[in-house]
Amino acid sequence: MATPPLTLDQLNAASLDDARAMVAGLYEHSPWIARAALQQRPFRSLAQFKYALCQVATNAGKDAQLALLRAHPELAGRALADKSLTVESTHEPNKAGLTHCTPAEFEKIQQLNSDYNARFGFPFILALRGPRGLGLQKAEIMATFERRLQSHPDHEFQEGLRNVHRMAEIRLNDRFGRSIERGNLVWDWQEALAQYSDPGYAELGQLTVTYLTDAHRACAQRISNNMREAGCDKVHIDAVGNVVGRYKGTGASPKALMTGSHYDTVRNGGKYDGRLGIFVPLACVQGLKRANKRLPFDLEIIAFAEEEGQRYKATFLGSGALTGDFKPDWLDQVDADGISMRQAMKQAGLCIDDIPKLKRIASDYMGFVEVHIEQGPVLSELNLPLGIVTSINASVRHTGEMLGMTSHAGTTPMDRRRDAAAGVAELMLYVESRAAADSDSVGTVGILNVPGGSINVVPGRCQFSLDLRAPTDAQRDAMASDVLARIEQIAKARGLHYHLTETLRASAAPSAPAWQQRWEAAVAALGLPLHRMPSGAGHDAMKLHDLLPQAMLFVRGENAGISHNPLESTSSDDMQLAVQAFEHLLNSLAQELS
Amino acid sequence: MATPPLTLDQLNAASLDDARAMVAGLYEHSPWIARAALQQRPFRSLAQFKYALCQVATNAGKDAQLALLRAHPELAGRALADKSLTVESTHEPNKAGLTHCTPAEFEKIQQLNSDYNARFGFPFILALRGPRGLGLQKAEIMATFERRLQSHPDHEFQEGLRNVHRMAEIRLNDRFGRSIERGNLVWDWQEALAQYSDPGYAELGQLTVTYLTDAHRACAQRISNNMREAGCDKVHIDAVGNVVGRYKGTGASPKALMTGSHYDTVRNGGKYDGRLGIFVPLACVQGLKRANKRLPFDLEIIAFAEEEGQRYKATFLGSGALTGDFKPDWLDQVDADGISMRQAMKQAGLCIDDIPKLKRIASDYMGFVEVHIEQGPVLSELNLPLGIVTSINASVRHTGEMLGMTSHAGTTPMDRRRDAAAGVAELMLYVESRAAADSDSVGTVGILNVPGGSINVVPGRCQFSLDLRAPTDAQRDAMASDVLARIEQIAKARGLHYHLTETLRASAAPSAPAWQQRWEAAVAALGLPLHRMPSGAGHDAMKLHDLLPQAMLFVRGENAGISHNPLESTSSDDMQLAVQAFEHLLNSLAQELS
Repeated sequence: MATPPLTLDQLNAASLDDARAMVAGLYEHSPWIARAALQQRPFRSLAQFKYALCQVATNAGKDAQLALLRAHPELAGRALADKSLTVESTHEPNKAGLTHCTPAEFEKIQQLNSDYNARFGFPFILALRGPRGLGLQKAEIMATFERRLQSHPDHEFQEGLRNVHRMAEIRLNDRFGRSIERGNLVWDWQEALAQYSDPGYAELGQLTVTYLTDAHRACAQRISNNMREAGCDKVHIDAVGNVVGRYKGTGASPKALMTGSHYDTVRNGGKYDGRLGIFVPLACVQGLKRANKRLPFDLEIIAFAEEEGQRYKATFLGSGALTGDFKPDWLDQVDADGISMRQAMKQAGLCIDDIPKLKRIASDYMGFVEVHIEQGPVLSELNLPLGIVTSINASVRHTGEMLGMTSHAGTTPMDRRRDAAAGVAELMLYVESRAAADSDSVGTVGILNVPGGSINVVPGRCQFSLDLRAPTDAQRDAMASDVLARIEQIAKARGLHYHLTETLRASAAPSAPAWQQRWEAAVAALGLPLHRMPSGAGHDAMKLHDLLPQAMLFVRGENAGISHNPLESTSSDDMQLAVQAFEHLLNSLAQELS
Repeated sequence: MATPPLTLDQLNAASLDDARAMVAGLYEHSPWIARAALQQRPFRSLAQFKYALCQVATNAGKDAQLALLRAHPELAGRALADKSLTVESTHEPNKAGLTHCTPAEFEKIQQLNSDYNARFGFPFILALRGPRGLGLQKAEIMATFERRLQSHPDHEFQEGLRNVHRMAEIRLNDRFGRSIERGNLVWDWQEALAQYSDPGYAELGQLTVTYLTDAHRACAQRISNNMREAGCDKVHIDAVGNVVGRYKGTGASPKALMTGSHYDTVRNGGKYDGRLGIFVPLACVQGLKRANKRLPFDLEIIAFAEEEGQRYKATFLGSGALTGDFKPDWLDQVDADGISMRQAMKQAGLCIDDIPKLKRIASDYMGFVEVHIEQGPVLSELNLPLGIVTSINASVRHTGEMLGMTSHAGTTPMDRRRDAAAGVAELMLYVESRAAADSDSVGTVGILNVPGGSINVVPGRCQFSLDLRAPTDAQRDAMASDVLARIEQIAKARGLHYHLTETLRASAAPSAPAWQQRWEAAVAALGLPLHRMPSGAGHDAMKLHDLLPQAMLFVRGENAGISHNPLESTSSDDMQLAVQAFEHLLNSLAQELS
């Protein structure tokens, strides 16, 4: 860029025409977006301006959005050849090496472009620069292209718009010389940690870190180093493998603040699930240390050794040890290779006898906060980088079987059937509508099978599962009670019978109001609207809830929030905002105490 | 019985009190049924009287029906011990050897009785005499008891009533000395034929006769003998293994009547499917021969060698050969052991070269009629022994897969899901209601599976099948078109996409009106109400439909019409009526021609 970095003050103070010139080219051939957003000046933050830009496009209606998408050139396509792209578009494909394609690659891209345009009616749009300002690799681009070609048109339309906004965000950072240094730091820490993966996965380039494998122990060692280098005063690996770092306060407050999340992963998982909640506060510690600043309280960051329950059946093993929930009989569980947890812990040099000592005393802490990637599509769809968690949902799970009468599909009249699968179908639609009626409950039939089903046989058996979650135990119980009543009603009406087995029941962990309000204040200070939402997934905070007041902050996931998947991703911009929010929470807490 | 056999004329002529005395004890402690039915005298047939008895109970309402069921003693229970049963009840359990139970067996029966009563609120009722007047075996009784204990209460209530009516029927036959000699003959032929079963099934006591196995060839040989002994003038096994018997007419009509059905079976099937349609007309031939009577036309009875498509993929191989539909490339199909159809036919001594000569000339025949067990619950529920087939249903089959987006069951809000299984559930309920709206269409989703489904994952894929059948091609096509439109609509609304593959399409075979009317006249002559119904299953008549006018007669199946199952059953009483109906059709046809 030839232009020198702008400041937000300049943008706020400029005439409309000058301001329009300052942000010209943010959106490909679509100056109307910036024009409308600038009407809302002054902006308190670049994040607020970005959100305003997104909202203009969101509110402009489908026709204008389609025109916006169609204003973009094809990827490495004809426009690149005849130089008709805007400045920003031309310089990005270069970074991904897309102008250095082999003829076969070029032909493949042309085919994908053509198929995509035929299917969706607009060109494939991908924000080519990754979180660290580096281009995506060619192979990643091709894989993403092929995956998105399979999407539903409505969803792909939104995914196209999200990429358009991400491109504008990248350009805006360049234009305003915005520092996302701490977001990049978190990104770097996560990339470095993602180099370690269990045997069998590492070779495939997949990320899998399960409890106490070599990769897991290497991660603990690496996190210890990160903590020490960032400025933690005390760092140790405890008796279950949690990495505990403490940034000492002034001693003004006798109570510490606990934060953290887990560093183990699911099989073939993502780099952010858990780990983001370790490194976001650690970036704050680094900032405090460099500024030679002490808080009036100790900050304890814990990288929990185990949350996902992948190697052994026990889950929340790391946070469970802190609440006194580590069950001694877990030690006798064996992994797929027959290695007991006890053996694995001994081999790792952990002091099993010390596990009971890990139990924390509630009065030593003010509370527990956790930052986590959302693992869902909500924030992404709302164009919001951060979300306020109101509660970790209560859940209940059942496995079930519906039983009717197997009969001839040709000779059994409709009114004389006892179709087990049709009964389950009715149940599924009820679960769907019942959960939707609450707006923040979810209900899922994830297992569905007619054993030995034939095309010409009315199903006499149908296996299914039920997973019901809601922000409070009462809301979950009301939904579960309605669903169970409906099963009974369906069975009665259809002449079926059924078996149900409850396999899991977990209580809700509502956020402590005072702590939730601290997160809200932090997000509001960034100039961002507040979006309050329940957490559908379980988190370490759910365990700590038994001991301490807790509240969580969610960070938007890219790729429509996909998680437990290598496509799980967030951006340095969003992580930078998470660090700022965490910092705000620390500072306001310091103020409260003073 | 001490009383001499009664006649229907006596019953019709008697005073109400005398008539009531004649039929006292038909229903256990429930004389109100006979009293009401007798108001409808005179009866044209015992069958008509029986039906009137059933109708009284059917129209009496649930409370009276429950009282009727509760008027029955427990099986081999306390009532047997203290001699409080009616005469008829006491003499029946003896025949099944239930009074000679071991203490363990007695205890088991007591437990079953107790469980059954607790579940349904009435005693287990089983008509203990089988079709041949012999008692059911003890093991069969116990198996039936255990199976029915699992039934839905509504269905078991009806099954109890059906058994009550069957007991009354048996008693009525005794009281009136009714001959069911020809029903018994058909029963005997079928029992004898059921001794032959393929290796692996015979050892288990299961019936399986697939194309050209040793058991299959033995059946052909046995049927040849039956045909000759019954009086057929010419009997031969043709080039595909059909057994063809001809009872010569007077020569007055140049055209023959063709009838018959198949003698192969499905794996672990029933004794009546197909074979009933061979032996019912053969019983008529025996009657004609014994009476030394000739019809003005030849009667050709064909025992088709293959209809079920069990050993090879080809189906309707026997009847197909007659319509010129035997495809030469079928000869290269191989069975599970790698034996080609050609090898199997050679080994059986069949003249493959003669297959094309089997093709019949339409002008040589008046038409084709077929008697078949219903293979469904309709006649059983209506208390009707015979039904008139209006059409063999047209059908179309698809296999399909619905595709959405796999996502986290906890973190994906209901309004952002692309749940493939929920889409299929919606489709299933639509298929169910759309087929029901036609009243005589059927629609089935028999295959249903979420591959690799997990309790906490929103299904991204769901496999399913569609089987749609209707009495006419137009009705089937209208239904199929609605169903396909609905899939499209569901996919669009839910952001899903799908694949569908049509795997079968068969045209309807509506009955020829003149032939259907002949069956109707035959059933009406028995004093029975007419029930017209489509055939949901395919039959040999569907093939012959391409060549000749055709119409079918259905015979009620016991056990709620269960078929393709060892429980498939009918009674000598019903088979006797089928023989009488067939005889009526032959005689009225003779009259038409004279």
